[in-house]
Amino acid sequence: MTTRNAPIIEAAYGRTPSRPPVWFMRQAGRSLPEYKKVREGIDMLDSCFMPELLAEITLQPVRRHDVDAAILFSDIVVPLKAAGVDVEIVPGRGPVMDAPVRTEADIANLPILDHEITEVAQGIQIINDELTETQALIGFVGAPFTLASYLIEGGPSKNHERTKALMHSQPQLWHALMERLTPTIIAFLEQQMAAGIDAMQLFDSWAGFLNEADYREFVLPYSTRILATAAGRIPRIHFGVGTGELLTAMSEAGSEVMGVDYRVSMDAAAHRVNTKVLQGNLDPALLFAGDDAVRKQVQRIKSEVDAAGVGHIWNLGHGVLPTTDADAITRAVAIIHNEG
Amino acid sequence: MTTRNAPIIEAAYGRTPSRPPVWFMRQAGRSLPEYKKVREGIDMLDSCFMPELLAEITLQPVRRHDVDAAILFSDIVVPLKAAGVDVEIVPGRGPVMDAPVRTEADIANLPILDHEITEVAQGIQIINDELTETQALIGFVGAPFTLASYLIEGGPSKNHERTKALMHSQPQLWHALMERLTPTIIAFLEQQMAAGIDAMQLFDSWAGFLNEADYREFVLPYSTRILATAAGRIPRIHFGVGTGELLTAMSEAGSEVMGVDYRVSMDAAAHRVNTKVLQGNLDPALLFAGDDAVRKQVQRIKSEVDAAGVGHIWNLGHGVLPTTDADAITRAVAIIHNEG
Repeated sequence: MTTRNAPIIEAAYGRTPSRPPVWFMRQAGRSLPEYKKVREGIDMLDSCFMPELLAEITLQPVRRHDVDAAILFSDIVVPLKAAGVDVEIVPGRGPVMDAPVRTEADIANLPILDHEITEVAQGIQIINDELTETQALIGFVGAPFTLASYLIEGGPSKNHERTKALMHSQPQLWHALMERLTPTIIAFLEQQMAAGIDAMQLFDSWAGFLNEADYREFVLPYSTRILATAAGRIPRIHFGVGTGELLTAMSEAGSEVMGVDYRVSMDAAAHRVNTKVLQGNLDPALLFAGDDAVRKQVQRIKSEVDAAGVGHIWNLGHGVLPTTDADAITRAVAIIHNEG
Repeated sequence: MTTRNAPIIEAAYGRTPSRPPVWFMRQAGRSLPEYKKVREGIDMLDSCFMPELLAEITLQPVRRHDVDAAILFSDIVVPLKAAGVDVEIVPGRGPVMDAPVRTEADIANLPILDHEITEVAQGIQIINDELTETQALIGFVGAPFTLASYLIEGGPSKNHERTKALMHSQPQLWHALMERLTPTIIAFLEQQMAAGIDAMQLFDSWAGFLNEADYREFVLPYSTRILATAAGRIPRIHFGVGTGELLTAMSEAGSEVMGVDYRVSMDAAAHRVNTKVLQGNLDPALLFAGDDAVRKQVQRIKSEVDAAGVGHIWNLGHGVLPTTDADAITRAVAIIHNEG
């Protein structure tokens, strides 16, 4: 099904959408009771390889909240797992590697994704069968810094010290790891496009732990290559947290839309990027503060976006927090559709 | 002892120091074997109320690393504990409150510090007896947003959702809490000044979780009041993490020196603040990357600072990470003294 008239696609291409498009990062998952029910007894990473289940989880928030896009339920380590990397997702902690990747030999032995992840392709078909023509499916693509940090640290890290140490003490090893990772990320993106995603978001969640010089030297070339894969085919959204200082560099990687976290004003963001469309900016913690507080922030963001003369896809400045009340999310979507 | 000729004091007042002054946030504590030894079997918060011990811990990094300042070994909750709040520091987690502070009654019942913390005053005397006239003692002052977040959340929080919810849904309660906290913070600062600190740093570690509008409305008035207490008496340093978007507002609170984390270039920081002196900017993760990498970053920071024409106190852009090798810290100090 083509969704070229979906409000989110219109907005991504800088045209005027029929209503203010909104989706929330992490809208699928932990904040929804129906998610907890279908995931019961099923390992997180396993669920990303079960077509019916991943489709159901992807669709749940679309049905419940009336958001304008589904985000493919997946995880940043899915293509690595499919390629043969020993990784599991530990509840309450995140992806943990059986063996960290730190040496030339480790990098040379890192498998590259060389086959179709059929379960994901099948899941995308099921999702597209249910989505209407005004709804879009956004593909999930993990970015190389965040993925490399998991591999080097061996799991989630608060300060990414081993990752940065490798970067600065053995830059040739860092670049070898990026060269090894990038084809896997691109393969996963190609597969999602072939299966029918309508847009894609590159999640570089942790890029904000780098300063601009490091980002430009160690990350930008690879993100550029990944984003180029989708150029002219589907709208590309590029997102990271705490990236106020990186927005200019990140926008040089090439995308139609730049994601903005909740720390940066939309006015400041618009001046820093070369994209004509911004996404995000609503503080996820505000979903705990009641509808009046949400409405006030929606008005603030709208006035900044209007003043800057850019397009806007509504979203949070970070993912939905785990303890968020599901009804508060639905009401926020309605507020945005009415006043955004 | 007067330390008015100490390089760090000279630099803080915008004069030319006899050598590039350097100290590291969290230089005292967990990264040092001699710290682990003296703390053995002693509760963290208890140690902040033991004059000989807090002095010893404060002095250990000065002896070992040849840094230009001691930072008073303390904790943000020390004045609350002294005032009578039930709080303990849980190893590996941080300060945990016996009961969170969330209602009008909770706030009205929050004790205010009304007596001298004699153990800290005695500790400061012991420290000053050992410091030379080229070394300075920096007082430790916790800022209201970070402190309020501990009280409202009941402990350390990743997303500060209850804190922000209170701020936005019951702003009058938020301001009442700030009015109740500020006198305790000011009292602790006054006591440290009376006991002989040579400079002070206001640690608002978590302010970077706020956007600028929220910071200005909910935090700035109180930080301004706290910093005004020390105006014209000792140099004031103001610091938070992830505060790129807040530097302008934070510098309006009034200080001689603005702390800069590792994400913002010194050039960008200099343009955002009204202070003539910056502090920080070295990524703490670089202490894991070897001396060459540290030297390269020191040169980068120095060239940015020189180009911006501001003064500089060398420091990390965040605290020393727990697993940092103590010798790497010593060598970084030497590199800064030689090339900074």
